[in-house]
Amino acid sequence: MNLLTNPLLTDLYQLTMLQGYVDKGMHEEAVFEFYVRSLPGTRGFLLAAGLETLLTFLEGMRFSGEELKYLAGTGRFSQNLLDYLAKFRFRGDVFAIPEGTVFFENEPIIRVVAPLPEAQLVETRLINILHFEILIASKAARCVLAANDRAILVDFGLRRAHGAEAGLLAARAAYIAGFASTSTVLAEPLFGIPISGTMAHSYVEAHEDEVEAFLNFAYANPNNATLLIDTYDVHKGAQKAVEAAIRLKERGIKVRAVRLDSGDLLTLSRDVRQILDRGGFKDMRIFASGNLDEYIIHDLVSQEAPIDGFGVGTKLDTSEDAPYLECAYKLMEYAGQPRFKKSQGKATIPGRKQVFRQLEGKTMVGDIITVEGDEAGGIPLLTKVMSGGQRTTRRQDLKDIASYARSQLQSLPAHFRELKTKPPYPVKISPVLSSLRKEVVR
Amino acid sequence: MNLLTNPLLTDLYQLTMLQGYVDKGMHEEAVFEFYVRSLPGTRGFLLAAGLETLLTFLEGMRFSGEELKYLAGTGRFSQNLLDYLAKFRFRGDVFAIPEGTVFFENEPIIRVVAPLPEAQLVETRLINILHFEILIASKAARCVLAANDRAILVDFGLRRAHGAEAGLLAARAAYIAGFASTSTVLAEPLFGIPISGTMAHSYVEAHEDEVEAFLNFAYANPNNATLLIDTYDVHKGAQKAVEAAIRLKERGIKVRAVRLDSGDLLTLSRDVRQILDRGGFKDMRIFASGNLDEYIIHDLVSQEAPIDGFGVGTKLDTSEDAPYLECAYKLMEYAGQPRFKKSQGKATIPGRKQVFRQLEGKTMVGDIITVEGDEAGGIPLLTKVMSGGQRTTRRQDLKDIASYARSQLQSLPAHFRELKTKPPYPVKISPVLSSLRKEVVR
Repeated sequence: MNLLTNPLLTDLYQLTMLQGYVDKGMHEEAVFEFYVRSLPGTRGFLLAAGLETLLTFLEGMRFSGEELKYLAGTGRFSQNLLDYLAKFRFRGDVFAIPEGTVFFENEPIIRVVAPLPEAQLVETRLINILHFEILIASKAARCVLAANDRAILVDFGLRRAHGAEAGLLAARAAYIAGFASTSTVLAEPLFGIPISGTMAHSYVEAHEDEVEAFLNFAYANPNNATLLIDTYDVHKGAQKAVEAAIRLKERGIKVRAVRLDSGDLLTLSRDVRQILDRGGFKDMRIFASGNLDEYIIHDLVSQEAPIDGFGVGTKLDTSEDAPYLECAYKLMEYAGQPRFKKSQGKATIPGRKQVFRQLEGKTMVGDIITVEGDEAGGIPLLTKVMSGGQRTTRRQDLKDIASYARSQLQSLPAHFRELKTKPPYPVKISPVLSSLRKEVVR
Repeated sequence: MNLLTNPLLTDLYQLTMLQGYVDKGMHEEAVFEFYVRSLPGTRGFLLAAGLETLLTFLEGMRFSGEELKYLAGTGRFSQNLLDYLAKFRFRGDVFAIPEGTVFFENEPIIRVVAPLPEAQLVETRLINILHFEILIASKAARCVLAANDRAILVDFGLRRAHGAEAGLLAARAAYIAGFASTSTVLAEPLFGIPISGTMAHSYVEAHEDEVEAFLNFAYANPNNATLLIDTYDVHKGAQKAVEAAIRLKERGIKVRAVRLDSGDLLTLSRDVRQILDRGGFKDMRIFASGNLDEYIIHDLVSQEAPIDGFGVGTKLDTSEDAPYLECAYKLMEYAGQPRFKKSQGKATIPGRKQVFRQLEGKTMVGDIITVEGDEAGGIPLLTKVMSGGQRTTRRQDLKDIASYARSQLQSLPAHFRELKTKPPYPVKISPVLSSLRKEVVR
C-alpha cells in the first residue's frame, strides 16, 4: 500500500457518512471552507502553505483494488458505496488564497465546491496537509523576521519532526517562509529545496584527535566543510579549526564555517570570531544550532552576535510554542442553501465567502470578509485554482512562492515584523455577510 | 519514489560524514545508544514505543537506482561512497527495551552495534521514528491513567497530526498505551488496530432536519450509529436522538451512543444522561470530544460525569503540552574504546550500558544504569532484538504489546498513576559506570 496518497488516510466517519449520502442520493453541490478559528496567543498572523500538496492529493485520490477489498471485508459498507468509491475521482472546484499569503483568523483560505460526498470525503487529509504546512510556515516566518536578513536560516528538524512526512513538509513550508535550505536530503529531489549540512559530534568522537577529524572531513568534502567545534571545549575547538584550516589552505581547501551547538551562543560566538580572525580566517563563517527558535534568534541578532547562520530544528518542525491551530473545514452551503452550526464556541459563518485586503502604500491595513460577489473593496484573495478536479493554473515554482511570501512579510504592519502579536490586525465581517448570518440563523 | 522507506530521509551530514569514513576505511565497530536526556516538566515517566517500526525500517533500508542517480548528480560524493551505498544493507545488532515498557531519563532504550558508517547512517530516521512514537505513547498513557478504566478512549487525531505518518504512528502508539481504537481507517489494515467513528456536524447540516439526519445515518449504518447532538442545541439534540431512537427501535436498529463535541461537558453529559434515561434508553452511551487531554478527562472522570468514552485528537497527536523530547542517539564506543562528548548541558555517559529495574512486590522502586556485564541487581531491560540485521524475535502482536504496557502502568508508583510528576523516580548511575565515565573523561 502506498501510504501518503492512500484514500484510507481518513476518518471512519467520512465513509459512514458517505454511505448515508449515497443511500439517499445526496449528491447536490456542497460548499466547504477551510479556515482558522482563532490564532494561537503567540501568533499575530499566519502564512498560507500547503496548497500545491493539497492539489496533488486531490488530483491523485483513487481507491485501488486492495483498498476496496479491505473496505468490503469490514462488512461495514453496502455495495452501492463500494461501487461509488471504485469510480471515485475528485471533480470539484477549488478556490484558494495563494501559498505564501499572510492571513488571519476566520478568513477562508480554501473553498471546495463539489457534490456533497466528494467535498466530504477529502476533509481529513485536506485538513491534515493544510494545518501542518500553515503551522510550520507561520513559525518559520517568525524565525525569518527575527533573523532580519542578517543571518541565513537552515531547517534542521527532520529527526524530531513528527514522522517522515512532517519532516518533508516542514522543509517545504520553511523554504516558502524564507529559509535558505534544509538538512533533509529527500527535500531536494522531491521539492527542489537546496540542502546543506555540517558534521555531528560522533564524527569528532570517532577520531582520536579533533584536528584529524576536521582534516579528514574537509578532505572528503572539500567544497562544503563546516567544522563542529563544541564536542570537548569550544575555545580549543576553534583553535583546532584554525590549525586545520591553515593546513587545508595549503592544499587549496577552504573551510567554509564552524558550528556551535551548545552553551552561551552570544559569548562563544564573539570569542570564536576573535579566534578565527586572529588566525587569519575573517571570511570563515560561524553557524549556530541547538534548540533555537525565533526568540533566541531575535536576542542574538539584536545583540549583534557574530553568527552568520542558524540551524533551526525541533522548535520549528514541531511549532513548539503552538503545536496546533484551531482550524476547521466546514459546510457553508448545500443544495443552494447556506448552512451553519452554532455549537458553543465553534459557530460558523454561513455562505460562500471572499476576503478583501486593503493596503496603504505597501502596508496591509485591514481585511474584510464578505460574501462572494460583494465588492467590498481592496484586493480579493481567493481565486479559482482547480476546476472540475483539474488545476487551472500551472504548478508554481517553490522559489516564486518564497519570493512572494517575502513581499508579503514586508507588507505586514511594523509591529508584526518585530514578533509582536498585538494589536491584532483588523479583520471585519462585511454588513452583507452579517445580514446573511442573521437571516440564516433565524 | 517511495517516501516513508526512502534512505534519503536523512540529514545531509550523515552522507558527508560517510564520505569521510569510507575514504579513511573507518569501518570498525561502533556502539550508539538512543535515550532521552531529560523528561519534559509535565511527564513523570515515558513509555517505550516504535521498536517494530524501527526494525522494519532497518531491515528494508536500501538505495535504489533512482536515489543513487540523484546522489551522483549532486556532485557532492565520490564513486567509492556511491558504490558503498549501492550495496548498503544494515547488518548490525540491536538491543532494546521492549515496546510498552515504562522508562526514564538517561536510560538507553536502544543500542545499535554495527560498523561505524552503518550505525551512523541510520541515525536520522531512527530518532525520527522512536522520538515520535515514544512522545505519543507517553501522552496517551497519561490519558489512559486519567480515564482510570471508567471510560474508553479513541484516537481522533489524524486531521491535526503533523502529516500522514504522524497520524498513523500516533494511532499505533496510542493503542499500545491502552486506547481502545482509532478513527484513522488505514490504521486497521496497516496495524490491525480497531477503528471506530461517529458523524460530523456537516452531516446534520446537510439535512433539513436533525431527526431526519439521525434516521438516515442509522439506516445507512445500522450496527454502528453514534449520533452527534450539539450542532444547534444539545438539549434539543438529545431529545431528537431519543425521538430517532424510538423510531429506529421499531425497525430493529439500536442507536449505540450520542456524541457531545462542545460546551460544558460535565453539565451537558448529566443533562443528556437524564434525557436519554427518561426516553427509555439507559444503555445508550454518551461519548465526548473536543480538544480533550488527560487533565480534562481526569476532571470529568473524578466528578463522575456520565461519559462512557472520550475521543482524544489534537492534543494527543501533537503531544500539545510537550511536543518534543530531548532525545539523542550518541556514539558510546568506537573500535573498542569508550567515546564521549562534554558539550555544555549535553555531555554523554560513555560505554555500552544496561538498565536494571528493581521491584517491591509488583511496584517499581528504582532503576540502575550500569555498564553491560555488570550485574547490578533487578531485571535487565535491554535484550537483543536484531542480530546481523535480522530480527532475532518474531514480530510482536500489537495487542500483546498493549497488554504488557497495561501491566507496566499498573506497576508505576502510585503518584505517577495519578498524573503527578513528582517526586521523580529514582534512577541511579552504578559505581562501575561512574568510574568508567571519570576514567574516559580523564
